[in-house]
Amino acid sequence: MSVTFPRGFRAAGLSAGLKPSGRPDLALLMADHPCAAAGLFTTNVFAAAPVSLSRERLRGNRARAVLVNSGQANAGTGMAGARDAERATAALAESVGIPAQEVLGCSTGVIGEPVHMAELLRALPKLVAALSHEGGYEFAQAILTTDTVPKEASVDAGAFRIGGCAKGVGMIAPNLATMLVFVTTDAPVPGAYLSQIASVALRPTFESITVDACTSTNDTVLLLASGAAGGDPITPESAEWGALLDAADEVADSLAGQLIADAEGVNHVVVVEVTGAVSTDDARRVARAVAESPLVKTAAFGGDPNPGRILQAIGASGASFDPRLVDAAIGETPVILGGVIPAAYLEAGEEAARAEMKNAEIEIRITLGEGPGASRALGCDLSYEYVRINAEYTT
Amino acid sequence: MSVTFPRGFRAAGLSAGLKPSGRPDLALLMADHPCAAAGLFTTNVFAAAPVSLSRERLRGNRARAVLVNSGQANAGTGMAGARDAERATAALAESVGIPAQEVLGCSTGVIGEPVHMAELLRALPKLVAALSHEGGYEFAQAILTTDTVPKEASVDAGAFRIGGCAKGVGMIAPNLATMLVFVTTDAPVPGAYLSQIASVALRPTFESITVDACTSTNDTVLLLASGAAGGDPITPESAEWGALLDAADEVADSLAGQLIADAEGVNHVVVVEVTGAVSTDDARRVARAVAESPLVKTAAFGGDPNPGRILQAIGASGASFDPRLVDAAIGETPVILGGVIPAAYLEAGEEAARAEMKNAEIEIRITLGEGPGASRALGCDLSYEYVRINAEYTT
Repeated sequence: MSVTFPRGFRAAGLSAGLKPSGRPDLALLMADHPCAAAGLFTTNVFAAAPVSLSRERLRGNRARAVLVNSGQANAGTGMAGARDAERATAALAESVGIPAQEVLGCSTGVIGEPVHMAELLRALPKLVAALSHEGGYEFAQAILTTDTVPKEASVDAGAFRIGGCAKGVGMIAPNLATMLVFVTTDAPVPGAYLSQIASVALRPTFESITVDACTSTNDTVLLLASGAAGGDPITPESAEWGALLDAADEVADSLAGQLIADAEGVNHVVVVEVTGAVSTDDARRVARAVAESPLVKTAAFGGDPNPGRILQAIGASGASFDPRLVDAAIGETPVILGGVIPAAYLEAGEEAARAEMKNAEIEIRITLGEGPGASRALGCDLSYEYVRINAEYTT
Repeated sequence: MSVTFPRGFRAAGLSAGLKPSGRPDLALLMADHPCAAAGLFTTNVFAAAPVSLSRERLRGNRARAVLVNSGQANAGTGMAGARDAERATAALAESVGIPAQEVLGCSTGVIGEPVHMAELLRALPKLVAALSHEGGYEFAQAILTTDTVPKEASVDAGAFRIGGCAKGVGMIAPNLATMLVFVTTDAPVPGAYLSQIASVALRPTFESITVDACTSTNDTVLLLASGAAGGDPITPESAEWGALLDAADEVADSLAGQLIADAEGVNHVVVVEVTGAVSTDDARRVARAVAESPLVKTAAFGGDPNPGRILQAIGASGASFDPRLVDAAIGETPVILGGVIPAAYLEAGEEAARAEMKNAEIEIRITLGEGPGASRALGCDLSYEYVRINAEYTT
């Protein structure tokens, strides 16, 4: 159902000929009326042209449409790329009769290659004609690159609905990952508060995903609220605020889980939970360090519990902690106790940990001490298939 | 020739039965007299027991012997591990009749497993009896783990000699890498100045190597000067100081080159040279980010120039720079100009860059601007073989 599950949105997706494969590569999300909007964007210095454009246009927290192309990332394309992003969104604005300022843009695909503008512009009338209140699936399909399946999620909270879709399987790391995420709601949320929902309910979840520690040039998370559900504006003082945050959380969790489950070459999802850190930041560093370690990732692929690699990654993370207070477990099996790989593990625990490593989802829980800081990272194994995909694919 | 090429050192190596494979696993380096010594150690919070012991004993910048075992890393072993390191070095000290304070220790192998002390202690008399002024090769062999070849280097500077050996093929990242490096010289250098040589001539080279971004628990670089060459003490004021730094540089470069050439699963060495940064630190960040990017590494494996991944890694490095001033080249082919992947590359440059990617050594040169900061990272490709080795091996 994705982005058209909430009332007040239409969407479409089609093959414009941007991708050599001929797969769907142009997508449009359009609100029935100008609506509240908020965004989160990559921290990469080489942010793609549409990232700069969308960030700028979102200053007023309003938008009407989002035009997305896959196939070319429009990053590393300089002034020409900026002009292409302007032209594409301006052409779309003109064809639907709205100000260009209300059109956001996203691109994903090969970095450095100019967007195939002739094909894009030629396909716009057909794309606009295809807009539909049931077009969420077509939209979710046309934003994909090496993804194997579309990722969609939705929650019906009674008073309002929320839905979303996402893409991204590699060049994924916190701050943010190479992903495009689109979340819509028909809840009546003023623009200023929508940013707060994006920060509180979406950011932590999408920042917890890491496939390969590579922060992309194009990451974008967009949140649009049509208000079509009716009712009073929802603000942090409203009774519905909590329910809205919960629903946004649920959609984000579902999409994040779908993203990591479709990561390049994935066989196991690795969930790293860190508690007891001095700060959230320290907890995040440790969670990321373990989830991103090529040695932990190859161990996950090989089904080898290998606590030494977890210990190494914690110790090299840069986080501040007392090594004598560090505990870790794989599933229910303690593999580090008080900073030491315990004799009980070496003598009898390895089999249980090895069994846990066979699970589709491998859980590594780490306690750094007694501080309040906690965080979570969602990673995956490093397989032959990851190497194959990335040795063959031109990003 | 390695560590016994300089006069005043004997060495030995043998199979003590610490490794299941039965390969050599116990090594001893011994100076004829107490001598000047300096060390560089891992920054990992979970530093191995022998690292803590050696760091402590090197405070006076003097040492007589280094006992090294491979097979067990003696990291993540807590107080029991500390006692094992003490006992092993004390037993060696007693058997050769020197103070335990003059014995340094190093371990490498599986993290968390206790050192097989019974086998180690039983082998000490035979190890001591095997000490020889020609024992450098045996020493270099017995320190290896998954290395395929010993790494040795030597320089005869006329007035003095310098030699060394090293091990390490994975869990290698700057600050320092999982490597053990032993460098000896017969130059008469007072202990205080030896630390300076270690910092100036050895540290930058060994910190430039990265196999998998994983800083080990056991990294150690030791430098010993016997003074057996005779002559006046060499200090920064001496005429020979420059020649000594040059010779140390040469040995370090050779060993570092041998380490990366034997990295796990390596097919291509990737040399990343960064200039024009605001600071050395910024240059290092960018060099490391590019050399450690799994996407750049798989592209190197696949022989795909893929400038987009270089751009992504530079942009996500955390270094401070103006993206509009960034240039990069693969070999002699410009792939980024003024922050943009140039049309000339897309239209005609790709073939030349693709040919460069076939070389055993792939050179990526990056200019960030016009600042004075420069740095270099030595990395390698990420291959099926790296995944195979690390999915099967318990670190």
